Amino acid sequence: MNYNEIFDQAIDRLHSEGRYRVFIDILRNKGAYPNARCFAGHNGPKPITVWCSNDYLAMGQHPKVVEAMEQALHDVGAGSGGTRNIGGNTHYHVDLESELADLHDKEQALLFTSGYVSNDTTLATLGKLLPGCVIFSDELNHASMIAGIRNSGCEKRVWRHNDLAHLEELLEATPLDTPKLIAFESVYSMDGDVAPIHAICDLADRYNALTYLDEVHAVGMYGPRGGGISERDQAADRITIIEGTLGKAFGVMGGYIATDAKIIDCIRSYAPGFIFTTSLSPVLVAGVLASVRHLKSSSVEREGQQAAAATLKTLMREAGLPVMDSTTHIVPLMVGDPVKAKRISDILLAEYGVYVQPINFPTVPRGTERLRFTPGPAHSESMMRDLTSALVEIWDRLELRLAA
Amino acid sequence: MNYNEIFDQAIDRLHSEGRYRVFIDILRNKGAYPNARCFAGHNGPKPITVWCSNDYLAMGQHPKVVEAMEQALHDVGAGSGGTRNIGGNTHYHVDLESELADLHDKEQALLFTSGYVSNDTTLATLGKLLPGCVIFSDELNHASMIAGIRNSGCEKRVWRHNDLAHLEELLEATPLDTPKLIAFESVYSMDGDVAPIHAICDLADRYNALTYLDEVHAVGMYGPRGGGISERDQAADRITIIEGTLGKAFGVMGGYIATDAKIIDCIRSYAPGFIFTTSLSPVLVAGVLASVRHLKSSSVEREGQQAAAATLKTLMREAGLPVMDSTTHIVPLMVGDPVKAKRISDILLAEYGVYVQPINFPTVPRGTERLRFTPGPAHSESMMRDLTSALVEIWDRLELRLAA
Ligand SMILES: Cc1ncc(COP(=O)(O)O)c(C=O)c1O
Ligand SMILES: Cc1ncc(COP(=O)(O)O)c(C=O)c1O
Repeated sequence: MNYNEIFDQAIDRLHSEGRYRVFIDILRNKGAYPNARCFAGHNGPKPITVWCSNDYLAMGQHPKVVEAMEQALHDVGAGSGGTRNIGGNTHYHVDLESELADLHDKEQALLFTSGYVSNDTTLATLGKLLPGCVIFSDELNHASMIAGIRNSGCEKRVWRHNDLAHLEELLEATPLDTPKLIAFESVYSMDGDVAPIHAICDLADRYNALTYLDEVHAVGMYGPRGGGISERDQAADRITIIEGTLGKAFGVMGGYIATDAKIIDCIRSYAPGFIFTTSLSPVLVAGVLASVRHLKSSSVEREGQQAAAATLKTLMREAGLPVMDSTTHIVPLMVGDPVKAKRISDILLAEYGVYVQPINFPTVPRGTERLRFTPGPAHSESMMRDLTSALVEIWDRLELRLAA
Repeated sequence: MNYNEIFDQAIDRLHSEGRYRVFIDILRNKGAYPNARCFAGHNGPKPITVWCSNDYLAMGQHPKVVEAMEQALHDVGAGSGGTRNIGGNTHYHVDLESELADLHDKEQALLFTSGYVSNDTTLATLGKLLPGCVIFSDELNHASMIAGIRNSGCEKRVWRHNDLAHLEELLEATPLDTPKLIAFESVYSMDGDVAPIHAICDLADRYNALTYLDEVHAVGMYGPRGGGISERDQAADRITIIEGTLGKAFGVMGGYIATDAKIIDCIRSYAPGFIFTTSLSPVLVAGVLASVRHLKSSSVEREGQQAAAATLKTLMREAGLPVMDSTTHIVPLMVGDPVKAKRISDILLAEYGVYVQPINFPTVPRGTERLRFTPGPAHSESMMRDLTSALVEIWDRLELRLAA
């Protein structure tokens, strides 16, 4: 039994597939986003422009958020000091849960340490509570949902991405009195497309299924109050459980679900990933409270983001770059090869001070490696023009195809 | 298919077993720990003394920690804005990982969003990387380790708590060339006893097993630099992977592992719970950096905690209270019934302003429900005398048994 050999082989596989990951060491400059400093190389920090942050609206730098966190830090200190049940249930947690329930027009909400954990432990626990439950999962669902579904021990039926006919076929083939849960996302973050929520809910009604919607890449950004695509499409009341993150558009860290009081009570009481862990730091919770409240009443950030995404897509398309079909704020550029995607990203960072991470397997399927840009309200049109011409130059240099 | 009925039944089970949990809504007063405010009831916040925090050394309120967090907040903002691979790898993360590797004298360390996630995803991933691995697990291992072991899909052998003969029997029954991993804790947090690390490592050597040690309730508190029981017992170099939390003695939030560079590279590259989630907020990471650095060179907090625990155990024992055999800073008082444990806790809060959470199933086995006190350097002897006489009065009132 040679353990080292096994670990070496695992790493070698990554290198040979060209998908060994190198983490870029950066610090953002508060108040000057998307500007940041990069610590790669040996010449001290180098100024860069960040094009791949999921702090989509720069709320992590918003004065209200920073101020709320500072105040909580001085009022109650750094950590919560316990699990939610044992000393870690602060008044901030209680307030934020009401705020999030209100955001989605649900009876209650429940906080988790991350969006990943909220998906993993909620789906696993739901599946265990519902005897013989079958879970229907969109094939592009996020790793955290896949983990939760697997950990539920339930039978899983995977339907082709956003394919309603296929979903219905699978639902139809399952006995009517079997508990069913349909799990899907609103905005698919690597492609930028959107699920047909109402149509999926129609099927859920017809086949008596519960619905679970991951709004991680939509909360804060869609709907008049930032309640996500389900708010924009006026479908929130048709979804059983809405799940979101506090680490992307809200700019901080953490995750949550919003649903009926009864289901919250079950998850709160049975989900190991909720019960057996130190609760979110009250400093983070205070920051999120400020962020959610701000985005409930302000749409400037959302509008700025949509405008920036539209501009960047147009510029890239006009330049013949292979920008993918996205109907949202996400701007993916298809490369289709992990080595080339990394090479483009390396050149952008080294020569143009542009930071965009190459996206490879297992985040996207093999052969669909891409660059994924997330322009926000703070990316100016001149930054976008510079970016586009840099990309055209690199595409040319690496002899990649541009559209006619 | 009536979903509501199923959820109702799940909640009814908790009520009927007397283990339905009510979260106490509190805010700690920074700079005045263990004092806090409680928001239960309707008469506005009420002052209480916290006796069950896992911010064991009150580092969550330490000026150095608060200052470091404040500075990070102003330098870079609230959240990291991405996964470690996509924009969320800040210079703070890189620095803290070096600091933690040094703390345990290991080649490298890796951060996770919590101790729970570090156990869950590391054990699951290790088990998947090692073909046919068998995992040996102490029967009192924490829920997060149990989750990781189950999610690894490996065969599991559970050995009786701290029983070396039983562990050896199970190891012996497994073929020598089968990959093996022994997973255990140093301080068992609900009982306060300690694992025989060297003896377990002797067995690991004899049977060629890897070792995984959860030091969640020991880091910061044991060893000359706070490296845990493995540092105190000079056994760190014999353990393959040391796991810890940043949310208890270090006072903030997050988790980590420390081990060989090769294993870190594997976990970093293969563990879904590490890859697919927003990284720890740089504000938290900055706070932990200050906390770890402080506790590496200061032993006042550790000594104060040990002295307080010794005093409280003596006072309770002298009063005839059923304090359990603990060789650490944890002071558990056996009640043995969930309803009575909750009743004692309710009276303490309502009449004495003492907050100690009752501990019930699934955190401890049924029939061993208890109160768990965690005195720290800031709990004075007079607080402990008050607490002890309150407990004696309640024991008397509820007709519970005191020792002769
Ligand atoms: C669709 C989706 N769900 C859940 C998550 C996890 O959220 P968090 O980063 O808060 O863990 C992510 C990304 O991180 C995601 O893309
Ligand atoms: C032994 C043990 N391991 C791991 C954890 C999880 O650590 P964290 O609170 O950082 O998630 C806990 C408690 O929370 C624990 O008691």
